[in-house]
Amino acid sequence: MSAQNYILRDENSIYYECGYSCDNALYLKLGSEAFFITDSRYELDARENVQGADVIVDRNLAQQAANILNQNRIKKVTFDPNEWSVASFSLLSNNCHVEWIEHFAFSHQKRIIKTPKEQQLLAKAATKGAKAFKKFIKTISKDGIGKDEYHLGDIVRRTMTYRGRYEVSFEPIVAINANAAKPHAFATSQKLLRGDLLLVDAGLKYKRYCSDRTRTFCLNNQISDTLEQSFSTKRDQKIYDIVRKAHDVAISKARVGMRASEIDKLARDVIEKSGYGQFFVHSTGHGVGLDIHELPVISAKSETIIEEGMVFTIEPGIYLPNKTGVRIEDMVVMGSKKATVL
Amino acid sequence: MSAQNYILRDENSIYYECGYSCDNALYLKLGSEAFFITDSRYELDARENVQGADVIVDRNLAQQAANILNQNRIKKVTFDPNEWSVASFSLLSNNCHVEWIEHFAFSHQKRIIKTPKEQQLLAKAATKGAKAFKKFIKTISKDGIGKDEYHLGDIVRRTMTYRGRYEVSFEPIVAINANAAKPHAFATSQKLLRGDLLLVDAGLKYKRYCSDRTRTFCLNNQISDTLEQSFSTKRDQKIYDIVRKAHDVAISKARVGMRASEIDKLARDVIEKSGYGQFFVHSTGHGVGLDIHELPVISAKSETIIEEGMVFTIEPGIYLPNKTGVRIEDMVVMGSKKATVL
Repeated sequence: MSAQNYILRDENSIYYECGYSCDNALYLKLGSEAFFITDSRYELDARENVQGADVIVDRNLAQQAANILNQNRIKKVTFDPNEWSVASFSLLSNNCHVEWIEHFAFSHQKRIIKTPKEQQLLAKAATKGAKAFKKFIKTISKDGIGKDEYHLGDIVRRTMTYRGRYEVSFEPIVAINANAAKPHAFATSQKLLRGDLLLVDAGLKYKRYCSDRTRTFCLNNQISDTLEQSFSTKRDQKIYDIVRKAHDVAISKARVGMRASEIDKLARDVIEKSGYGQFFVHSTGHGVGLDIHELPVISAKSETIIEEGMVFTIEPGIYLPNKTGVRIEDMVVMGSKKATVL
Repeated sequence: MSAQNYILRDENSIYYECGYSCDNALYLKLGSEAFFITDSRYELDARENVQGADVIVDRNLAQQAANILNQNRIKKVTFDPNEWSVASFSLLSNNCHVEWIEHFAFSHQKRIIKTPKEQQLLAKAATKGAKAFKKFIKTISKDGIGKDEYHLGDIVRRTMTYRGRYEVSFEPIVAINANAAKPHAFATSQKLLRGDLLLVDAGLKYKRYCSDRTRTFCLNNQISDTLEQSFSTKRDQKIYDIVRKAHDVAISKARVGMRASEIDKLARDVIEKSGYGQFFVHSTGHGVGLDIHELPVISAKSETIIEEGMVFTIEPGIYLPNKTGVRIEDMVVMGSKKATVL
């Protein structure tokens, strides 16, 4: 891959290459040379922070990139068709004579194995995320009863961001009872009552790296912040215990060298054998890094071989439509053999 | 435009056509017929809420759209190159034989004049936004001193969303003193002190319609929630008074039939004549609707003729690098002759 020419437009893809990015930039790699192109608003920051690339400042980013390609008589350039709008790509491709090589998920594939430094940042993000879970559990234990999902969501968001200090890695999901049956539930005006089931899926960004965690709680007098939960109904307890087992089995049995589909199967088998297979309606997990969804995909169809240094979620769930839903999610990093929860 | 065939991918563009949208949908208009294509996750909501279009449910949206185009032997279709990624557009265009007509800002142009219903929703959004400003001013007056921009931003966000009830229309900007010299300042750990200048730019979404408002305050014993502000330094007071005059003049003198550039000039002339022209580094305003930035653009170059029913911001500012910044912003709707602040 080292001799390949490529061009990037996505903010995180560019950050990965040179340690800096902004919302209007292009990154062009031509053999051993690299160019970071942005507009004048970001000039100072870019000159200070971009590593290993020439910084070029111009209002018309695409034209600059085309000029460089023309001047260097470049013949083939790889790009990811998901990173470019038709409009931006036309501005680029209409101004140079290049054979464009489509490469879907080009940057995500480069980023699939996390460096030790990235693993540290992801571990730190996960630790801060877990600490926020402890905090909002305390707040909701004390003051949550009678508040609706909007208000609970606000508490979760406020805690996850450490009062505005960090960005969320995605909009938190906060769902009570039947609303938890939707894997991507939107908040409603339903109010939390004593004994309710509460699902929270939330994460933050630490130095651009994402955390991602889900817990399903029971609103007893004191909410437990461990995986030990005792629910008000036998039905909820039953599916919780199954999901917890699926989560634990997948994490403890995941091994380097497995296909991602085998890890998915570890979790899925537990749920299927309990008779709830049809209610586990999504994949077991996804890679996490600069983006909240990266490679590898941990799904029944994924052929990816799991390697040391990959970081991904394990998040089995059971969703009983209009009744209830349970999901438990942790981030793990693959060590030389086994997975460790971050 | 009525007989034109077109295809939309942007969520707000689609919502405008049929009163419903989601994050995975296509909208195809062929003469008098219309099709809303989405995946099974949104089927129930779409069938309940889409108006005036057939709902089609399929995993492969682009293939479905291509099939419809082929079946109806459609020859020309308009699209906006900014709404499509290269990847999505390839999936569509590789599967049908159509002449694609590029039309930049196609939906924004359709939406440039707001219907009475839309004006009502925008007025409601603006009223709720203004009420939130009153609230956080009260909170910050009482508890803001000593809190940093992150924390103040959290208070503003929490108030703008009415504790999670509404979405923000963009991430609030909260900037103290020299940080306000950046029109799009990011929060820092700088703490608010008595006598400081504080700039807040924030808005919410009410039934998908955006509000947008900026105020620059002085942190006296009691912050005023009107445009009457008395600043700690003569310099700040001077630029505030100039910006306020530019804001007032542009709003009071804007007329139907003017070019947008003439409205920009109303504000810019006040600032230029005061000797600060070089420090007013952006346009005077922008349309607001389902998107926070719509047409018309109120800039020195905009040839758009202002018509009754347009809704846009008037937001002059003066930014003295590394020193201070002031911006005052309101949304206005053009009536049959004059503009009214929402």
